[in-house]
Amino acid sequence: MRIYNKSKKLVVKKDEKMSINLNPVRGAKDYLPKEMRMRDYVQEVILNTYKQYGFERIGTPIMEDIDRLLGSDGGENLAMIFKILKRGEKLKLDATPLNENDLVDMGLRYDLTVPLTRFYAANRASLPTPFKCIQIDKSFRAERPQKGRNRELYQCDIDIIGDSSINAEIELLYVAAKTLQNIGFEGFTIRVNDRRILNELIINAGFDKSEIESVCISFDKLDKIGEEGVKAELLEKGYDKEVVERFSKTVLAGGSEIPADFCSNKEVVENLRQVIAEVQTLASGKYNIVYDKSLVRGMGYYTGMVFEVAMEGAGFSVAGGGRYDNSIGKFLNEDIPAVGISIGFERICEVLKDMEKTFADKKRLVLIYSESDDFSEVIKKSEKLRGEGYIVALLKRGKKLARQLDEMVRDGYGYSATFGEGDEVRELAFKK
Amino acid sequence: MRIYNKSKKLVVKKDEKMSINLNPVRGAKDYLPKEMRMRDYVQEVILNTYKQYGFERIGTPIMEDIDRLLGSDGGENLAMIFKILKRGEKLKLDATPLNENDLVDMGLRYDLTVPLTRFYAANRASLPTPFKCIQIDKSFRAERPQKGRNRELYQCDIDIIGDSSINAEIELLYVAAKTLQNIGFEGFTIRVNDRRILNELIINAGFDKSEIESVCISFDKLDKIGEEGVKAELLEKGYDKEVVERFSKTVLAGGSEIPADFCSNKEVVENLRQVIAEVQTLASGKYNIVYDKSLVRGMGYYTGMVFEVAMEGAGFSVAGGGRYDNSIGKFLNEDIPAVGISIGFERICEVLKDMEKTFADKKRLVLIYSESDDFSEVIKKSEKLRGEGYIVALLKRGKKLARQLDEMVRDGYGYSATFGEGDEVRELAFKK
Repeated sequence: MRIYNKSKKLVVKKDEKMSINLNPVRGAKDYLPKEMRMRDYVQEVILNTYKQYGFERIGTPIMEDIDRLLGSDGGENLAMIFKILKRGEKLKLDATPLNENDLVDMGLRYDLTVPLTRFYAANRASLPTPFKCIQIDKSFRAERPQKGRNRELYQCDIDIIGDSSINAEIELLYVAAKTLQNIGFEGFTIRVNDRRILNELIINAGFDKSEIESVCISFDKLDKIGEEGVKAELLEKGYDKEVVERFSKTVLAGGSEIPADFCSNKEVVENLRQVIAEVQTLASGKYNIVYDKSLVRGMGYYTGMVFEVAMEGAGFSVAGGGRYDNSIGKFLNEDIPAVGISIGFERICEVLKDMEKTFADKKRLVLIYSESDDFSEVIKKSEKLRGEGYIVALLKRGKKLARQLDEMVRDGYGYSATFGEGDEVRELAFKK
Repeated sequence: MRIYNKSKKLVVKKDEKMSINLNPVRGAKDYLPKEMRMRDYVQEVILNTYKQYGFERIGTPIMEDIDRLLGSDGGENLAMIFKILKRGEKLKLDATPLNENDLVDMGLRYDLTVPLTRFYAANRASLPTPFKCIQIDKSFRAERPQKGRNRELYQCDIDIIGDSSINAEIELLYVAAKTLQNIGFEGFTIRVNDRRILNELIINAGFDKSEIESVCISFDKLDKIGEEGVKAELLEKGYDKEVVERFSKTVLAGGSEIPADFCSNKEVVENLRQVIAEVQTLASGKYNIVYDKSLVRGMGYYTGMVFEVAMEGAGFSVAGGGRYDNSIGKFLNEDIPAVGISIGFERICEVLKDMEKTFADKKRLVLIYSESDDFSEVIKKSEKLRGEGYIVALLKRGKKLARQLDEMVRDGYGYSATFGEGDEVRELAFKK
């Protein structure tokens, strides 16, 4: 019995007083076996590629100290933190006035960078320099649910901590591109910029240094709301019309040239050019890398180069990152350079899902047996077939074998054998 | 600068007013690369073995509806749920009296069975019958932290839904045992019991049917507090001394014989015997399976056979499960048989850690280069070495190369090559 409630969620009426919503919580998802095969495949490719390049996986908890999360440079993510209620005696509900932050002691992390900075500072003595690490794990954001944006999302990050040279940027971009290629993508474009160039352009347009953060937050919405939208938002924030116009003309319009007079720091410009040139060489024409004057990246913690990878045709980026030299150092009272890139696993899966690619790993076989068969012998027979290279599922013959087999075909099974009928293996086909 | 606070947690003094705790939240853990290599290896073995036997992985969210969690048969786990604060307008702090449950709308799941029952009921039309599924994912419990008990813990479950025959029990136990063997364990013991036998023994001792749950909760602590402890707790609960004595004599003392008059339901006894006999045959002497009169399993939802796997010498079980025929059906108003087993991943890792086994996957090589080398060429050289089967990490020569290499050796690197010095590959050894 299937009933749908007003918001089109599946419910089952248990009795007259109560109906049960069977859907996952808002913005989170259940994944069926077919989807999980794709997700496992993609995660395996990403992890194995990262490892192949000498990056090392670490693990950090999903729950983090609430003060640490709220004190981080997470921009708009800070408003999307899921907070965890204090437990036992620590929870005091009779305080007046009751403050939200009195009630909670932890939160679910909104990205993997905040835990990483804490992890590195805490475990530094046990880690090599530079430290090249992998994190593949879930983050949580109370976003308005939309396509490609889940409230529970996997991110696949690599970071290089302790190398201030542009080799770190080159290596990260190269490995991220190799990973996307190994998943099966090509012809994508890496867009790069440097926050220091951007900041100078913002100031040259007439903004004050203290306004950079606010301007960047609006600017980062360029993809979503367009040039006119950004301008409107800046004017609404009360900035001078002439300044906004100048900003629009020099920055918002974008561009892929790096004029020599863009930035007073010649080394920054030279480094950016060199990263582009070297990655272009390594790409051998399989993908592109371009300077994009209008690339911002939302996070407040970036201090140097920033990058994003866009797929031809897709309306969103599939990877992004940048240099954040101040985040780890603030825990340790010294400068620790760091640069990272994150592959947006959920976005990648959206793209692959639309491509309807299949991700069967091995030949899958159904071994059919009957109620009356000796089950230990059935299992022994199945082990023999596994030895021949099949994934083997056992299926007890029911009243409607054809329908049972159709279900197995739909689930990716291509072969069948019947216990007690010798070694014959048959190909399966959908019977409908 | 490393400073430890009163509770021996590492803190870094930022300034005189503030010190930052760098540790993960209480009861959760950071995992260094070496530990993650082991964890990844074990998870891969478990997943691949499960898949090899025709089980299919599904994915469910970590966050679940709070009413669903609190309404589940989770026994003592219900008191250990991490609850998530409502967000935005839904959070009303001025209600009086303020009730804890008014403040929260979700919780972190305490096991993988509650999400599975919801998942199956919601997605049944897209799933085969029987449905054999894998869940490898995190659960969360606000337990008092102790060895082998993390507040964030991975569980590795397989379940068979839709098969009421004992073949389901046999297959699950066989696959779980095969998985433990593939990880490298042998000589373990599977202990089995049937809740229906246990319930009858409890009633025969003189308890009332309504007291079974309460008796089982005390009884389940047998491993922790011993026979005298269980008896003391039952007496404290106010049960009759004579009844408790009789219970102690027939049940608490344990035993591996199944006397014919133990249970009025002959089929239950016969099935239990058959499961033990068939698994014993399949085990070929590599592990044992025994009846254990005193095995309970804490969860309230078990309806038939229950099982646990114990390692020789280890003070805890590494896997456990049982049949829970009523849990899924209650969402759908019909009987749906189900049986599952969960491998306790964190426990397994504790055991392996103490064994000091190493889990290097491939030969690991450090490619040393200098500041002045052409970095694109360095990368090209590294690709050549990867083509020869190495995992290759790039290392820029610093002032103290010997120390850098020692760090790499500690991290599992066994070989080195130097850019610009031809194709020579050297073995690395720790220099201290």
